[in-house]
Amino acid sequence: MIKVGIVGGTGYTGVELLRLLALHPQVKLQVITSRADAGTPVSQMFPSLRGFVELKFSHPDEAHLDQCDVVFFATPNGIAMQQTRALLDAGVKVIDLAADFRIKDVAEWEKWYGMSHACPDLIAEAVYGLPEVNRAKIKLARLVANPGCYPTAVQLGFIPLLEAGVIEEGSLIADSKSGVSGAGRKAEIPTLFSEASDNFKAYGVAGHRHLPEIKQGLANASGKAVGLTFVPHLTPMIRGIHATLYGRLKKDTDLQALFEKRYAGETFVDVLPAGSMPDTRSVRGSNLCRIAVHRPQGGDTVVVLSVIDNLVKGAAGQAVQNLNIMFGFPESTGIGLIPLLP
Amino acid sequence: MIKVGIVGGTGYTGVELLRLLALHPQVKLQVITSRADAGTPVSQMFPSLRGFVELKFSHPDEAHLDQCDVVFFATPNGIAMQQTRALLDAGVKVIDLAADFRIKDVAEWEKWYGMSHACPDLIAEAVYGLPEVNRAKIKLARLVANPGCYPTAVQLGFIPLLEAGVIEEGSLIADSKSGVSGAGRKAEIPTLFSEASDNFKAYGVAGHRHLPEIKQGLANASGKAVGLTFVPHLTPMIRGIHATLYGRLKKDTDLQALFEKRYAGETFVDVLPAGSMPDTRSVRGSNLCRIAVHRPQGGDTVVVLSVIDNLVKGAAGQAVQNLNIMFGFPESTGIGLIPLLP
Amino acid sequence: MIKVGIVGGTGYTGVELLRLLALHPQVKLQVITSRADAGTPVSQMFPSLRGFVELKFSHPDEAHLDQCDVVFFATPNGIAMQQTRALLDAGVKVIDLAADFRIKDVAEWEKWYGMSHACPDLIAEAVYGLPEVNRAKIKLARLVANPGCYPTAVQLGFIPLLEAGVIEEGSLIADSKSGVSGAGRKAEIPTLFSEASDNFKAYGVAGHRHLPEIKQGLANASGKAVGLTFVPHLTPMIRGIHATLYGRLKKDTDLQALFEKRYAGETFVDVLPAGSMPDTRSVRGSNLCRIAVHRPQGGDTVVVLSVIDNLVKGAAGQAVQNLNIMFGFPESTGIGLIPLLP
Amino acid sequence: MIKVGIVGGTGYTGVELLRLLALHPQVKLQVITSRADAGTPVSQMFPSLRGFVELKFSHPDEAHLDQCDVVFFATPNGIAMQQTRALLDAGVKVIDLAADFRIKDVAEWEKWYGMSHACPDLIAEAVYGLPEVNRAKIKLARLVANPGCYPTAVQLGFIPLLEAGVIEEGSLIADSKSGVSGAGRKAEIPTLFSEASDNFKAYGVAGHRHLPEIKQGLANASGKAVGLTFVPHLTPMIRGIHATLYGRLKKDTDLQALFEKRYAGETFVDVLPAGSMPDTRSVRGSNLCRIAVHRPQGGDTVVVLSVIDNLVKGAAGQAVQNLNIMFGFPESTGIGLIPLLP
Repeated sequence: MIKVGIVGGTGYTGVELLRLLALHPQVKLQVITSRADAGTPVSQMFPSLRGFVELKFSHPDEAHLDQCDVVFFATPNGIAMQQTRALLDAGVKVIDLAADFRIKDVAEWEKWYGMSHACPDLIAEAVYGLPEVNRAKIKLARLVANPGCYPTAVQLGFIPLLEAGVIEEGSLIADSKSGVSGAGRKAEIPTLFSEASDNFKAYGVAGHRHLPEIKQGLANASGKAVGLTFVPHLTPMIRGIHATLYGRLKKDTDLQALFEKRYAGETFVDVLPAGSMPDTRSVRGSNLCRIAVHRPQGGDTVVVLSVIDNLVKGAAGQAVQNLNIMFGFPESTGIGLIPLLP
Repeated sequence: MIKVGIVGGTGYTGVELLRLLALHPQVKLQVITSRADAGTPVSQMFPSLRGFVELKFSHPDEAHLDQCDVVFFATPNGIAMQQTRALLDAGVKVIDLAADFRIKDVAEWEKWYGMSHACPDLIAEAVYGLPEVNRAKIKLARLVANPGCYPTAVQLGFIPLLEAGVIEEGSLIADSKSGVSGAGRKAEIPTLFSEASDNFKAYGVAGHRHLPEIKQGLANASGKAVGLTFVPHLTPMIRGIHATLYGRLKKDTDLQALFEKRYAGETFVDVLPAGSMPDTRSVRGSNLCRIAVHRPQGGDTVVVLSVIDNLVKGAAGQAVQNLNIMFGFPESTGIGLIPLLP
Repeated sequence: MIKVGIVGGTGYTGVELLRLLALHPQVKLQVITSRADAGTPVSQMFPSLRGFVELKFSHPDEAHLDQCDVVFFATPNGIAMQQTRALLDAGVKVIDLAADFRIKDVAEWEKWYGMSHACPDLIAEAVYGLPEVNRAKIKLARLVANPGCYPTAVQLGFIPLLEAGVIEEGSLIADSKSGVSGAGRKAEIPTLFSEASDNFKAYGVAGHRHLPEIKQGLANASGKAVGLTFVPHLTPMIRGIHATLYGRLKKDTDLQALFEKRYAGETFVDVLPAGSMPDTRSVRGSNLCRIAVHRPQGGDTVVVLSVIDNLVKGAAGQAVQNLNIMFGFPESTGIGLIPLLP
Repeated sequence: MIKVGIVGGTGYTGVELLRLLALHPQVKLQVITSRADAGTPVSQMFPSLRGFVELKFSHPDEAHLDQCDVVFFATPNGIAMQQTRALLDAGVKVIDLAADFRIKDVAEWEKWYGMSHACPDLIAEAVYGLPEVNRAKIKLARLVANPGCYPTAVQLGFIPLLEAGVIEEGSLIADSKSGVSGAGRKAEIPTLFSEASDNFKAYGVAGHRHLPEIKQGLANASGKAVGLTFVPHLTPMIRGIHATLYGRLKKDTDLQALFEKRYAGETFVDVLPAGSMPDTRSVRGSNLCRIAVHRPQGGDTVVVLSVIDNLVKGAAGQAVQNLNIMFGFPESTGIGLIPLLP
């Protein structure tokens, strides 16, 4: 049993971490912090957890996070970077679900996130927590930067093609659709039910913070810089991301075999049979990414369909997957849940 | 490990049974039948089960159900009664998720279900599978009639009041709202997305098949016949039942204490603190029933709010709960899942 | 053409007023105010109005409302009462869509709304704007208190029974379900898509501000005080209210004929054929109230099903209906729209 | 007043035609046919029309369509081609909302629609009813092939770019998302609420019947054949199409001005200000197409966002627009409705 702390547990990523960790057989939930809600029982804010989580929210100043084995940050961007060094110094491992340590180019990070970075040296040390790419490094890491939701779905879809060098890396398109929980549990008008229901729209077309993160990952897979047009959309469902990815073929290849081989042995990436089109609900509540690859009318455009649950494989589930790797637990411990359908 | 068979696994109750049983540590899923889809892998029809369930649907004639320890019927009404005697004779226990054995009064059953009953004597033997009422009998049963979804939510809400004799039993009202999955996985126009979404309506006001089932259960609790107005409604969500129950107080009593005492020790009934109003999502995907009791403005009308997931506590989860009781497993084995929120 | 002003047009009631008034052939939209958004084109906030409404929001101080023929208040409670006297004095008619003038008992109003009333004498003058009850008075009114959404649906459903004296007035039950737009266009967590979607819950069981308004109206219909249990619920749809009403019969009567006779000649109340169960979508976007009356199993409980669009007959549409009556236009001018289905 | 007939009015296109035509000041709804539902009042099937449409469905054999001035076919594919010649011979104009006359290449049509065409010569005569392209021809037409829903949204978005020759026509991508009503009012499992709600998926990736229709239209705009990858998706809303279109710039140009100039004077195409991202709800229930054009990060990829209501501008509304043009009525007669928001 390891002792786990969560900083900032009042958002959707936080409650999802709690759902997964509460039944994780190797984890003792030690502390969860919230400045605003200190003293409130977690299960009062999230009645779904009644009977499963007995903790109250602790004030950050009294949380004794340094006595944990690992701390998750489920906070807004810019918080983890303030507290990580002290935790690492105290021998605590850190998994940041926000974006503080995802982008290696500090100037690029500062441009997109609009603040100075508090500890650029730790960016260099941090391991980008996409297990299907960095498993060996994650195993040794003190600090893991858990990937964003769009970046997870888009990278897992493009990586086999880019690693194999079969598509033009200069003109990639990622048309991505997210459920509304991706916007977080914040009181804002555009994500009200009466605004977001029975509606569909694009947003962030001019530029979205996940763009540099995705480009960094794809460049690593490709071995050279990539050109990417990334258009996120809001779709009226709670959970789920569907990435529809377009690339132009440079050479003929057996795409189905390429994907199956790349993800053979991966517990959480499921390459569907040729001709399949995954529903987001086929991964709802689970840590799975399901992928299908198509070549419509045998033309030179590859279409990849990649679905995840944004709160699980796109956030809390992948964070627990990283914890399992970091602590030597079987990788699916606590996250081997079957998707909820219907 | 016990060997489990499922008859009729192509509906929502079936896929939910599979979700729960696939990870049940004491169960080996032996066979699942479907006349129309024999030969099809289960995970092809329900991609959510890919990687978890390797079975194909078997033709009923080749299913060898008599080699199972227990068989679930997740079939339309009128099927289980045809096959139950042979299974019992072969030493197989039976849990019927349909209505064939729920109503003790055969004539009443035949009136509401519009067919002759094939084995009235087995109705007499069957135990109504509401563990919070019949746990001791279920433990000994060969044949369990798993309750309907509305009846579960309504009975659990009224039982403490009727057992204690504190409300008039002649004028009960159960205003009940169900998610659309309650109508099953059948190709019908009224439950199309474009019909049922962004819409709310009552149905079955003149009479619904769950009415006699509920009245039977409430009469048992009360010790005398009850008068009940039951109005079901369709609400645009997938899972969940919310029963709003009204009764007229006969005597003053501490309602909160009454409910807490009645359900003390019950794993799957959660009496909320006074003043609470449960969301259906607070039980989504779980076997819980959450209940709150109110007395608005201190008047003589009691209002009980009772929520369940219709596919879990209202069907498959309760069936597994019954299996656990029948086979002596800890009652929450395989069904201790945390609700999915958001 | 009359000159119309709207105070507070940035909520759902405001945009709905604009939708209706923009095509009203007797109306010139003169001014619409918003303190926070002064200077912003209305169609920038509500792109649905692009090409139909050219106005910008005006600052209240520069709105010259006294030059209008009629002013609608689509404001939070407590605003209209500050400004109404000056407008009336200037010869401007006022239709308040908030609650400031709905309740005749000032103390009762102050208790439920938590403020002192600024002009109790105008409460006495104000006409409660339910045309099916007060048409003659509305025609002569300077000041109309437009009914609330729940009160409209519940009163129209109970009134025929109470006026005829056929149900016990002491034990009425109104189990009411509202779409989420009823909560307004306010940035709040409970009405976020990810909170309110795929979910159903009761709220305000202990007491809701619409309770005294409904009781006042029902007492007027009945000729004596009524006892009412009112439980509102939130259902995951944008628009619509479904009231399920229960009363106990005192004497036998032809309920269908009673309702048809009461609403004969009413353009906006549609009594459905016996046995019907109205969908909320059958009135979506229209000013209609559709009603069905039932007597399940021939017992002594009457069940009335009453549906409206909360933003139209429950707010802006009824306000325009009142305007038509006040200015002598045909009552359906500008609000004769056909419901949007699907 | 012209006499209008509708063949096949029991689907969503049919009820939407009725909604629009019932209030059209120049139209008398003469007859609506349905083989299966002959004798049933239209308003019984569609309660939204109670009080607005008094017609009953007529049996096709007794419909006397030849006495109409114009007949709409709101039928499955393959019906209109059987009856059109007789109607034209009788002097009746025909507007087909199905696909029978949309594709000029008969062999191509027969390949995609899997049947022999009954009257290839009428295909040659038929005018493709996209008013923004073919207004002059529509004015003179006896037979109009009303465009499909996806084709309308995609063509209106690409046409300015292709006519101006500013994008490579060989590598167009149309990532399109449709509400569920696009699948029609048919009893099928995949479009049940419990299947399609809270879910997102692609379909028809290998090839969709709208592909050849779109390519034909785009080739006409471009003056040469185009290469198009078209991926439709199902999104959990009732109405609306959102097309996200990608093209590669061949030359620098002022995209915003290009679009504004192309659609200047078009009542039903609204080019949004630079930087806008249209919601589908901003056109809900209206005949509008709203379009925004983007060039993310100033790169060489153009992104066009185009939204319509699939049942209005994508079907019934455009059909009425064509009727108005054919009969010389002002083009927005009866279809000048304001979108329903929220």
